[in-house]
Amino acid sequence: MSFSVSCDDGATKARAGKLRTAHGAVETPCFMPVATKASVKTLASGELLELGFEAIICNALVLYLKPGVEVIARQGGLHRFMNFHRTIFTDSGGFQALRREFRPEFTRRGIAFRSPFDNSRHLFSPELCIAVQEALGSDVAMTLDDCPPYGEARERYVESVARTTRWARQCRATHSCDEQQLFAIAQGGTFPDLRRESAEQLARLEFDGYGIGGLSIGEPHDLMLEMLEVSISALPEEKPRYLMGLGSPVEVLEAIARGVDVFDSAFPTRNARHSAVYTREGKYSITKAKHLRSDAPLEEGCTCYTCRNYTRAYVSHLMRSGEALGMRLVTLHNLHFMQRLMRDARRAIRRGEFAEFVEDFTRRFRRAGNG
Amino acid sequence: MSFSVSCDDGATKARAGKLRTAHGAVETPCFMPVATKASVKTLASGELLELGFEAIICNALVLYLKPGVEVIARQGGLHRFMNFHRTIFTDSGGFQALRREFRPEFTRRGIAFRSPFDNSRHLFSPELCIAVQEALGSDVAMTLDDCPPYGEARERYVESVARTTRWARQCRATHSCDEQQLFAIAQGGTFPDLRRESAEQLARLEFDGYGIGGLSIGEPHDLMLEMLEVSISALPEEKPRYLMGLGSPVEVLEAIARGVDVFDSAFPTRNARHSAVYTREGKYSITKAKHLRSDAPLEEGCTCYTCRNYTRAYVSHLMRSGEALGMRLVTLHNLHFMQRLMRDARRAIRRGEFAEFVEDFTRRFRRAGNG
Repeated sequence: MSFSVSCDDGATKARAGKLRTAHGAVETPCFMPVATKASVKTLASGELLELGFEAIICNALVLYLKPGVEVIARQGGLHRFMNFHRTIFTDSGGFQALRREFRPEFTRRGIAFRSPFDNSRHLFSPELCIAVQEALGSDVAMTLDDCPPYGEARERYVESVARTTRWARQCRATHSCDEQQLFAIAQGGTFPDLRRESAEQLARLEFDGYGIGGLSIGEPHDLMLEMLEVSISALPEEKPRYLMGLGSPVEVLEAIARGVDVFDSAFPTRNARHSAVYTREGKYSITKAKHLRSDAPLEEGCTCYTCRNYTRAYVSHLMRSGEALGMRLVTLHNLHFMQRLMRDARRAIRRGEFAEFVEDFTRRFRRAGNG
Repeated sequence: MSFSVSCDDGATKARAGKLRTAHGAVETPCFMPVATKASVKTLASGELLELGFEAIICNALVLYLKPGVEVIARQGGLHRFMNFHRTIFTDSGGFQALRREFRPEFTRRGIAFRSPFDNSRHLFSPELCIAVQEALGSDVAMTLDDCPPYGEARERYVESVARTTRWARQCRATHSCDEQQLFAIAQGGTFPDLRRESAEQLARLEFDGYGIGGLSIGEPHDLMLEMLEVSISALPEEKPRYLMGLGSPVEVLEAIARGVDVFDSAFPTRNARHSAVYTREGKYSITKAKHLRSDAPLEEGCTCYTCRNYTRAYVSHLMRSGEALGMRLVTLHNLHFMQRLMRDARRAIRRGEFAEFVEDFTRRFRRAGNG
């Protein structure tokens, strides 16, 4: 279990490498589909393997609430539960617990909240967060963090940085599973000094890797990139960097150029369920009536299952008719698109041509009048 | 394109045979999954092939309304549209057009109704019904029939029989596609004389096969079987008999014992989406909390995709959490169950042991306390 960078781009900070976990190697930069409730929506685990995904991410807090950790532990952990025997990350759920519908309150020991499923009371502490993730048996656990929304007063982020570091230390002290790596999550809002402080404090604690949290939650795009750069500059070179929750294709490339190794986002799959199809020429909505007349695949030249087997006309009909198969077919395509994007990105890094790759991809993807 | 009976059970009226269509052979008795809107809900056409289905049924009227026949014709017909290159039946849609939400009225030429999708006015005539099915390119078209609900006054069924025969004759006169077989649909409500009359009138017109309609729509079970026997007794031996809309496992076997060759029903798939799992020991609801603790497959000894890959605990979690994958996994299992049931039925017929097979299956399936 280790992380190694095999190649730097040179012109950018992009790097290609390999993350090794108890369930195999993950080529980086990589994109992880989101399986919050132990399912990448609409897909079976066998399809994730066929798509070539080496890692996915589940949510510890959500699974703790439903179906409950004992259910999954009794089945031998998440890998066996989902029948997915490659790398599984678990997000701690700090981000979720602080959402309004959980009615969260900070206590001395952690986050007190109500389950949105059955209104039951819970206290999610750093210790419980680690116990849950160890019981789930994920390959990479995340520390409990305090992620305030964008746009609060500075003091809130000062508090968040302090609490996040304190909890990260407590998580580390509790964590005892050798097979499981533990990543901390850097916070700091949109204040460069706080970003640096958070990353430095966590770097000193020497985690297996580092999440960068609290970004892509509503702040301006340029500010997001600036904060990302600050966080990364204070994190150790030799450890993997995981930008949490960012998944639009162009932004992923921009983040790779700044040194990010790992991504996760519900964006490509959620977009798919809302009819947005990804192509190299940009996104388009498959429900538009004109697609009913098209016998082209979702994307010309695409080799995904959907494009090999079905036309735009059929997928458009399915989506317009509310047939579940439609969502699944677009999900398969969009995830295949993300996989190809990451593979192309790694290749460009190895060739030292990443800047040109980003420029070409972005120009084409943003070209007007597509779809 | 033909139908041949290769084997009679002897003790019952069950028979095993083969229906040949423009898209290959279909072993009978067979069960067809329902793809009303050109999709067996949640499944891709490749999965239907893996399940071994040789025939499915779509709905001409529903597809005529949405996406429209031109859309499918432009793609080269239903087979290419769905990418399913085995036998496709199309139901005429008479049954649907007469449902209350269509606000139907009989006119001199056919059924006038409003589209429930966009409230547009339509007149579905025998001629249009055939034109639609020829444009869809199905292998077996059904004539337009008048199927009243159960429990109307006798005159309504007298009228239905006359109209159904008249429309069947008009459908025949219009039908010109050699590649497509045309089946008529016998009606007659729950009146033996009307049942006999309808079947005899249609038999004289010499169709490629015969649907038996207007059953399993609310009438008592024994009455259904009695009417089925009357209809069959008046239909030609050498033509395939298709009992429309009946799909509960025991009833399917009872109908096979009376000489039915072809079935269709949304029952096993709709049941699946409502958490009902079929097993040889009966149905059970996978959402019950106890299944969260079970590492057994949905059904012991089952070789379906779901049972090979996932536990009851996982499927139960998915269904309880509203994850779309859950519906798909139970659908795969229930359709595999129906396929196995039909295969076992054919084998029992060939061995002349069908009566014992039905008795054994029924006893086991109805055993109390299962699941």
